[in-house]
Amino acid sequence: MGTEIERKFVMKNLGEVLRIPAVPVRQGYLARNFDEEVRIRRMGDEYTLTTKKGTGLRRAEFETPISAAQFDALWPATEGSRIAKSRRQVKLPEDRIAYVDVFEEHLEGLTTVEVEFDETSTALAFVPPDWFGPEVTEDRRYSNKMLSSEGKPE
Amino acid sequence: MGTEIERKFVMKNLGEVLRIPAVPVRQGYLARNFDEEVRIRRMGDEYTLTTKKGTGLRRAEFETPISAAQFDALWPATEGSRIAKSRRQVKLPEDRIAYVDVFEEHLEGLTTVEVEFDETSTALAFVPPDWFGPEVTEDRRYSNKMLSSEGKPE
Repeated sequence: MGTEIERKFVMKNLGEVLRIPAVPVRQGYLARNFDEEVRIRRMGDEYTLTTKKGTGLRRAEFETPISAAQFDALWPATEGSRIAKSRRQVKLPEDRIAYVDVFEEHLEGLTTVEVEFDETSTALAFVPPDWFGPEVTEDRRYSNKMLSSEGKPE
Repeated sequence: MGTEIERKFVMKNLGEVLRIPAVPVRQGYLARNFDEEVRIRRMGDEYTLTTKKGTGLRRAEFETPISAAQFDALWPATEGSRIAKSRRQVKLPEDRIAYVDVFEEHLEGLTTVEVEFDETSTALAFVPPDWFGPEVTEDRRYSNKMLSSEGKPE
């Protein structure tokens, strides 16, 4: 088990970030409730199945690589709960990475940026650069789980 | 995708069935809500991950074999939502099989018997033998999903 400590922001202008090569991501939810989710994801040529427990800044995460065949067997179960996006990685100071996700299809026009942390204290101390935009870490409407079925928040 | 059409009954007396060799089953839920579940199961030496959608007699089912390593990576996520039981298969007329599950640990004292069908019509036409006991197909408290966390119905 790992712990995911993450802050998320909505980006308004991609600007220079657009020049960074993007990896296509397709993910879908096998089951979801208020504080649990099971997600399968294809990112480039890598397939994973992930269970997350909890909401907001800090969540428990259980993950395993899966094969393309396993992904294909489960993908039909995600109908109606899918995300298509392209992901770019931007290097930040202190060896941090910003994951910039440009959403597609029913979520076109939405771009988010996430940063992961080892500790809650460093997460809270992190001062986001101006280009990040407004924070939505605690706004459940911006979780990929909710976006997949509910669409873009107004 | 498959469709699971199944009727379930509570057995009162195992009787002769106890003589049939049993396979140990351990299963746990990665996530659940009213009409979705993702389950991992070890049955003997076989491991599977299954997503079910819907409730009651007829449910959509998506399944894939998984490795022991994948099972082990995900099992900790099922804490608090687990089932331990032993399963016996009893041959019925018309090549049907009754799956008799004797529950263990927090569900000790409960025994269920399930029969699977290809068609809803044959499921409804099926006349259970007397030894099956009362039907609980539509009683959600007897779903393994609910039993795992809620315990035996009173």
